[in-house]
Amino acid sequence: MPTDEEKFAKGVAKMGELLGDSVGKSGSVLPPAFVKHTVGHLFGDVWQGEEMSLQERSLLTCTVLVALGRENEQRIHFAGARNIGIAREKLEGAITHVAHYAGWPVAVSAFGILQEVWPAE
Amino acid sequence: MPTDEEKFAKGVAKMGELLGDSVGKSGSVLPPAFVKHTVGHLFGDVWQGEEMSLQERSLLTCTVLVALGRENEQRIHFAGARNIGIAREKLEGAITHVAHYAGWPVAVSAFGILQEVWPAE
Amino acid sequence: MPTDEEKFAKGVAKMGELLGDSVGKSGSVLPPAFVKHTVGHLFGDVWQGEEMSLQERSLLTCTVLVALGRENEQRIHFAGARNIGIAREKLEGAITHVAHYAGWPVAVSAFGILQEVWPAE
Amino acid sequence: MPTDEEKFAKGVAKMGELLGDSVGKSGSVLPPAFVKHTVGHLFGDVWQGEEMSLQERSLLTCTVLVALGRENEQRIHFAGARNIGIAREKLEGAITHVAHYAGWPVAVSAFGILQEVWPAE
Amino acid sequence: MPTDEEKFAKGVAKMGELLGDSVGKSGSVLPPAFVKHTVGHLFGDVWQGEEMSLQERSLLTCTVLVALGRENEQRIHFAGARNIGIAREKLEGAITHVAHYAGWPVAVSAFGILQEVWPAE
Amino acid sequence: MPTDEEKFAKGVAKMGELLGDSVGKSGSVLPPAFVKHTVGHLFGDVWQGEEMSLQERSLLTCTVLVALGRENEQRIHFAGARNIGIAREKLEGAITHVAHYAGWPVAVSAFGILQEVWPAE
Repeated sequence: MPTDEEKFAKGVAKMGELLGDSVGKSGSVLPPAFVKHTVGHLFGDVWQGEEMSLQERSLLTCTVLVALGRENEQRIHFAGARNIGIAREKLEGAITHVAHYAGWPVAVSAFGILQEVWPAE
Repeated sequence: MPTDEEKFAKGVAKMGELLGDSVGKSGSVLPPAFVKHTVGHLFGDVWQGEEMSLQERSLLTCTVLVALGRENEQRIHFAGARNIGIAREKLEGAITHVAHYAGWPVAVSAFGILQEVWPAE
Repeated sequence: MPTDEEKFAKGVAKMGELLGDSVGKSGSVLPPAFVKHTVGHLFGDVWQGEEMSLQERSLLTCTVLVALGRENEQRIHFAGARNIGIAREKLEGAITHVAHYAGWPVAVSAFGILQEVWPAE
Repeated sequence: MPTDEEKFAKGVAKMGELLGDSVGKSGSVLPPAFVKHTVGHLFGDVWQGEEMSLQERSLLTCTVLVALGRENEQRIHFAGARNIGIAREKLEGAITHVAHYAGWPVAVSAFGILQEVWPAE
Repeated sequence: MPTDEEKFAKGVAKMGELLGDSVGKSGSVLPPAFVKHTVGHLFGDVWQGEEMSLQERSLLTCTVLVALGRENEQRIHFAGARNIGIAREKLEGAITHVAHYAGWPVAVSAFGILQEVWPAE
Repeated sequence: MPTDEEKFAKGVAKMGELLGDSVGKSGSVLPPAFVKHTVGHLFGDVWQGEEMSLQERSLLTCTVLVALGRENEQRIHFAGARNIGIAREKLEGAITHVAHYAGWPVAVSAFGILQEVWPAE
């Protein structure tokens, strides 16, 4: 089993791979224990799982954030999806799909966030 | 059965009837497929249902948006409710009622939105 | 202002008017303070508001319960809606409408509950 | 644009492709207008979108149902995911991932449903 | 039983004890009936319950507001928690805990609100 | 920093302290990676935090489960609360409180679960 230090290092790398330049922007408001859980456990262990690709995991994350109406976090993960090469059309399709499973309102707001962080060309 | 073109035209008319001048304000951020679903299917088919009046359907929509805490969309539909002649007292009563079924916090925020788009006289 | 005793009495009457024979079925599991809040405050004060009719308030309650996916409480209020003469078609239309604002899954489950407590003829 | 009849036919085909033998099991409790929306619009139009594969759309649907805690509908779509060849490991990974974005409780319940409709070998 | 006037007076006192200077800041947008329910019933009756201390009730309230992602109301109650002497570390621990039961996104946003109304020293 | 093995051992101990005989009842349906996260991370790290007592953490957990309407998991944690000596009156008060922040329906259902796993004497 990896040590906590190794997981933290893997988490930092995964966050960089997904989020690129936007890593750590909101980091300063998080207490140390929560940073440890986020980097070492969430990105350093859960996001390392090989049962799906990084693109699949990113799309799934975006989709859940839309379904739950978490707009602040959509900003981070929509930018991440763009960064790792997910097609905007696929993300649009996912939001449209979620509109039918979690309701129109979360989708309409999500399209607003999408346009803000990833303007349609 | 109506064609998609007919449903789209009926949807445009229904949106105008409900929302008046505010129609389409957020339209530019929505992809074409989602616009088609919103105008042609949601307003052009679902909102056409004759089992309740437009006022009943508007009030019901406002109520669900309060229960789900969807503040962006409350702006649109509270203004719509005012536009079609729903009494502010009825909407206040609905929000107060929802406070007891979905919790105080969504109601307190909804009253803030109401004051913003429809100030008490 | 009414006393707590008067509100409790008005709450009992309102619950009887809405729910008929099914009043109090789940009452025995509720602690005394919560019974007081439910009968005296919720039904004895909030449900007394004259800014909407009992039918409007019942439909609004059913709608919120569908949006929130609260199936146990749908049983009580769908039966109440039937009891006070709301048309089944109107309730079907409300659930169909909510499907688009809170997602298909809550609507599909709500139709199952509706069929259980108020079978289509 | 396709007619409503064509969309209904495409919806029936898509539901058969995804759900196989379990199609229509709960259909009898749904009113005709809602059946039309579900088959003709949801499966006949939204699920036809080519911006993602059927497997991607199925996984995304399962994920949203877990995030929203909709257990009844998980039964249908977990069985669908199995039917179209999604690996159980991928679905397990998705539920584990969602645990961190929508909370442990929805994931624990989802694993119970998964074991029920798709027992681990 | 106390009269409504007595409960209203007790509610005003409890709100002052919890919220100090920030009492009533958002009060002007609330209709009279809702103010009565909030002061007289919620703070004048429910918050008076002696089965837990004010600190316990405040922490519990903050926790629920995080779980439900109600950020506007977190502002009021995080400030209240500080006002009555709850340790920032305890609130941080509660938010971290909730991250695992209601998902990372509500916790990340809550830490942002916490830093805003109660900056770490 | 503790190793993963040490955290797993601490998690097992904490689960035993909280849940007593009911530990692991649902364990068999959970995949190994999720068991590792639950025992080693959630109970072996998060629940170890010393910023609040075990009773405070248990009550907070129960409260969040009520607010989110997660009835299956309420069964486990209401029994845990009883096991570690939380007064039933305090838990009743917490559910009553949550009724006002997350709505009556989740509270009514929670009282049903409470009566089931911890009958009033």
